[in-house]
Amino acid sequence: MASASYTDAIMLFGDSLTQAFSDGSLAQRMAEYYSRRYDIVNRGFGGYNSDWAIPVFEQVFATKEAREKGLAQNVKLITIWLGANDAVLPGSPQCVPLDRYKANIAQLVDLVQSPSSPHHSPDTKVILINAPPIIEEAWIEARIEKWESFGEEGPKPDQNRDFGITKQYAEACLEVAKDKGVEAVDLWTAIVTAAGGESPKELAPYFYDGLHLTSEGYAVLFNALSSLIVSKYPELNPEKMNMRMPHWADVDLEKPRIAFDSVQRKRLAGEL
Amino acid sequence: MASASYTDAIMLFGDSLTQAFSDGSLAQRMAEYYSRRYDIVNRGFGGYNSDWAIPVFEQVFATKEAREKGLAQNVKLITIWLGANDAVLPGSPQCVPLDRYKANIAQLVDLVQSPSSPHHSPDTKVILINAPPIIEEAWIEARIEKWESFGEEGPKPDQNRDFGITKQYAEACLEVAKDKGVEAVDLWTAIVTAAGGESPKELAPYFYDGLHLTSEGYAVLFNALSSLIVSKYPELNPEKMNMRMPHWADVDLEKPRIAFDSVQRKRLAGEL
Repeated sequence: MASASYTDAIMLFGDSLTQAFSDGSLAQRMAEYYSRRYDIVNRGFGGYNSDWAIPVFEQVFATKEAREKGLAQNVKLITIWLGANDAVLPGSPQCVPLDRYKANIAQLVDLVQSPSSPHHSPDTKVILINAPPIIEEAWIEARIEKWESFGEEGPKPDQNRDFGITKQYAEACLEVAKDKGVEAVDLWTAIVTAAGGESPKELAPYFYDGLHLTSEGYAVLFNALSSLIVSKYPELNPEKMNMRMPHWADVDLEKPRIAFDSVQRKRLAGEL
Repeated sequence: MASASYTDAIMLFGDSLTQAFSDGSLAQRMAEYYSRRYDIVNRGFGGYNSDWAIPVFEQVFATKEAREKGLAQNVKLITIWLGANDAVLPGSPQCVPLDRYKANIAQLVDLVQSPSSPHHSPDTKVILINAPPIIEEAWIEARIEKWESFGEEGPKPDQNRDFGITKQYAEACLEVAKDKGVEAVDLWTAIVTAAGGESPKELAPYFYDGLHLTSEGYAVLFNALSSLIVSKYPELNPEKMNMRMPHWADVDLEKPRIAFDSVQRKRLAGEL
């Protein structure tokens, strides 16, 4: 992969929870964490479920052929975070039955890991993230507020998400991780643990509309994800990696071009 | 450029002010603004001056040849934000004399715009950003605090930045922009205007150590930069651009793969 991008990247793949690049979002926290190490490539698509994610994935994750030709970055790690929209109640096109959700997530893992996949990328670590809890009351309130702000166009929204059903998808995601032998962040449990319980009042600080995470919610995820990376994939710990380009105080003042070329050579040779 | 990255990107090039991917930083705000439109490629290198930036630029900005082979993203816009470190007082290797600073910035613009440059990229808009004001008292305090926190190792730091000298570099940057016919954000003036004056007290909310910007400081920059983009390069206004991948409610539910392929085809054909 040529010089406009670094050689290596981390891809965040999922729905609106991934797409957010707001203050304190997962993407912002990861971009800061991997600053001057890896680019963070945000491939979050708001509202998408696991059915729709598959054809999208096939377009945003390079083929083996493209990667080998240097046409794409090496994705060292991909987070796959889907389930919140699959768990929408039947009646919405977003709803994906539990079994198909599991099959879809397994298929996404296979698209990366199976040698027969055109996207096979043996160097890419896969981490699944499951759906966080939903605060039903806050969610329906947010939907009605939005409907009112748009002049009450169309039918008044009704409740389309359920705490217990979302939990089934969260548990199913962990089962897929176990079946496929990949790591997972159990975000559902992490948030319930941080909140000290499952009640709307306890969960409130972690969600701004009952579904989407506040910075405090993302902090729980980031802490769990970064701990997992450091313990399971120490080679991906940014604090142990060299920065891209030397620290400014280490620049060879007499021959900066040579110093940089040397860094570049080492990097391309895989020595950095 | 293959599928792990989008075809088009915006590159932020500069020093630590660019490198920051913290809450409310330029990079975070731009990544949120261009969400599902362009990738934001952060190429900020803390402590670097314009001398050292040139060999780095030659390594992070693709050659024309690489781009034409599809080996790199098209950089639709690059911000070049250097000067704060060039303006460090003589005695530090960071210091670059004013005339050479101007020549270096002009050379960076030429590396993108000159047909004889190996990095020539006629589709890349260039926007220069000048150095913001410095709060001398806050900066020396921060340096001494850091020195104390490291056990007072080495000599006690002295003042190495000056308000009036930094202003000369800020003005020089605008002169280069005028000479080269590229747009610029006059961040110096924007911050002084927002602050209502140049006194340390008035400037305080915009800097956390007298040099580096707070979220409030970056907000001034982002507002100026995004307004400039919208007025001068309306084709780069993300609010007028199609999202990468359709809105979830527009997915063809019967044939999602065909719908996505069609979007992809249009995108590759330059119709999106």
